[in-house]
Amino acid sequence: MTKIITIPDLKKLIAKHGMQAFYRDLLRYLKEDFTRWDEFHKIPRIAAHVPNGIIELMPIWDDRYYSYKYVNGHPRNTASGHLTVVATGCLTDIATGYPLLLSEMTVLTGIRTAATTALASDLLARRDVTTMTVIGTGAQSEFLVLAHRVIRPIDTIRYFDLDPEAMHRFRKNMQDSGLHLIECRCAEEAVSGGGIITTATAAPGHQEVVKDAWVKPGVHINGIGGDSPGKTELALATLKRAKIFIEFMPQTQLEGEIQQLTPQERSEHVRGELWELVTNQKKGRESNDDITLYDSVGFALEDYSVLRLVRDLSQHYDIGTDLPIIPELSDPKDLISLLAGHHLS
Amino acid sequence: MTKIITIPDLKKLIAKHGMQAFYRDLLRYLKEDFTRWDEFHKIPRIAAHVPNGIIELMPIWDDRYYSYKYVNGHPRNTASGHLTVVATGCLTDIATGYPLLLSEMTVLTGIRTAATTALASDLLARRDVTTMTVIGTGAQSEFLVLAHRVIRPIDTIRYFDLDPEAMHRFRKNMQDSGLHLIECRCAEEAVSGGGIITTATAAPGHQEVVKDAWVKPGVHINGIGGDSPGKTELALATLKRAKIFIEFMPQTQLEGEIQQLTPQERSEHVRGELWELVTNQKKGRESNDDITLYDSVGFALEDYSVLRLVRDLSQHYDIGTDLPIIPELSDPKDLISLLAGHHLS
Repeated sequence: MTKIITIPDLKKLIAKHGMQAFYRDLLRYLKEDFTRWDEFHKIPRIAAHVPNGIIELMPIWDDRYYSYKYVNGHPRNTASGHLTVVATGCLTDIATGYPLLLSEMTVLTGIRTAATTALASDLLARRDVTTMTVIGTGAQSEFLVLAHRVIRPIDTIRYFDLDPEAMHRFRKNMQDSGLHLIECRCAEEAVSGGGIITTATAAPGHQEVVKDAWVKPGVHINGIGGDSPGKTELALATLKRAKIFIEFMPQTQLEGEIQQLTPQERSEHVRGELWELVTNQKKGRESNDDITLYDSVGFALEDYSVLRLVRDLSQHYDIGTDLPIIPELSDPKDLISLLAGHHLS
Repeated sequence: MTKIITIPDLKKLIAKHGMQAFYRDLLRYLKEDFTRWDEFHKIPRIAAHVPNGIIELMPIWDDRYYSYKYVNGHPRNTASGHLTVVATGCLTDIATGYPLLLSEMTVLTGIRTAATTALASDLLARRDVTTMTVIGTGAQSEFLVLAHRVIRPIDTIRYFDLDPEAMHRFRKNMQDSGLHLIECRCAEEAVSGGGIITTATAAPGHQEVVKDAWVKPGVHINGIGGDSPGKTELALATLKRAKIFIEFMPQTQLEGEIQQLTPQERSEHVRGELWELVTNQKKGRESNDDITLYDSVGFALEDYSVLRLVRDLSQHYDIGTDLPIIPELSDPKDLISLLAGHHLS
């Protein structure tokens, strides 16, 4: 039997464990795995550029597990009532190649992106930050806010989205959070006063959802939405003022905000990869006036970490749906016996 | 809901449709898809070389479907009662990126490998062949024989395996097939008299499971087991006597029998890719004395075809297990609503 984690299974798991505890554990798993960076075999994700969007496979492996995720990005999906992004993932046993866990990853992608961003914010933002700015209150926004509460005593959210419905939904979903929610009339108003500025918009092409003039010394920016070739959210001038950290250069240079930089500019402004911050091999913020930027595109290691956590918790709470997807045979070489005589039909 | 095809689902499907009919339909689907070769986006599979074996992702896509397979190869797995190869696969909708079918692919890999090999044999073997040689009677062997009955009036099987148990199992599984089964004491005896010679052994490294001196003019050889870097089954001298056809050069040159050839020898002896035979753009056998060789490594298009067939049949017979793995939302941007309030826990 192979353990499947469906949407109801994940809901049950989070209800049992608690969302805050899930984020706290995931941050710990992420730190453990980023600390072991050199033990992983890493490749840029395999991207298929298709008529309405993008489809990706994201594998990674070490000596214990192989993990992969299937994920799409179809900006126009919502017009037909579909999600822009859906995902499924799998954690398998390196020793045998057998799948251990096959999981929904649409929700888990939202969670792991938020947790990794919070990890970067923890290592880069000022210690005294209490206000967070959210530009783009789409599917990712609530996850981002909840994860950041684990790493800083956030009490105020300044938020803006071009779509009033998206702002309304965000307020509704966060109204019982105890956070002070400040709905802003424009991006500039939202950015003003935020110590951590997070952009997660779906706008295609090269945008400037945050103008450089609005970016004050001392802020930490998470650029989440610039995550594929030709899609960016921040001003080139801001990149040149910031200390930039990324996930994995071979992938980020194609997909992240830094695709706007020349190779020489990259070597000047990109200070390192996230794992180098986690392991203290690189310095992040050096003064309260530094502008820091986490240029996130989403990397396979984050999927590995969240699948590892879900596997551990699914065993702990005995949650999941068992399905016979992998053959179980008394004689492992007798594959055709699975067809129980029907092979001659 | 996402349609899952478990092992019991596949068994039910084949029992309903009939194995012969399944092979006949699959050969038709393969021909259709190989005919559309240029419409597919093709990359060599993504291989992870891990301590006990290999783990691969095999994606391919056209304007209608994206398909991928996860598959391993762990030669020592049988010692612990595990299968050497297990696989799962997925067919998704290019227009939305949504998964349409998530399937067991351990059995389907056996079936599609056999069907593609039979397709090659149909295009390359002599029309008057009635005897087939099988070297290596492992998990793949019965599938190979059954698929070949669809394309030639095979009445006799000459078979050999180093493992007597494997030969015994093969005989048992095929005893009601109506075929004349000739158990041989060595590979040479099995090869002698076979018009189609198929090798599918698990032996690691560069082997010569068929010596060149045994290969008579007129035979067609399917080299199935030489399918990863450093693993081959045929003699270099045989390759140089044969008209060779392959699946996809960027992958086969790394994994197939032809890894033994220099680039210049390859351009001389490799006559084309399978799709060029299917579309009559290349000539296969030109005389009854030609030696032809199909150097198979397994290509993603074959997974695409079998997943497409399984999807069509699962709809026709209403077979499959529906699971909520992809979120269903009245508001597709309200992802966190899936957690039903537990996000603040």
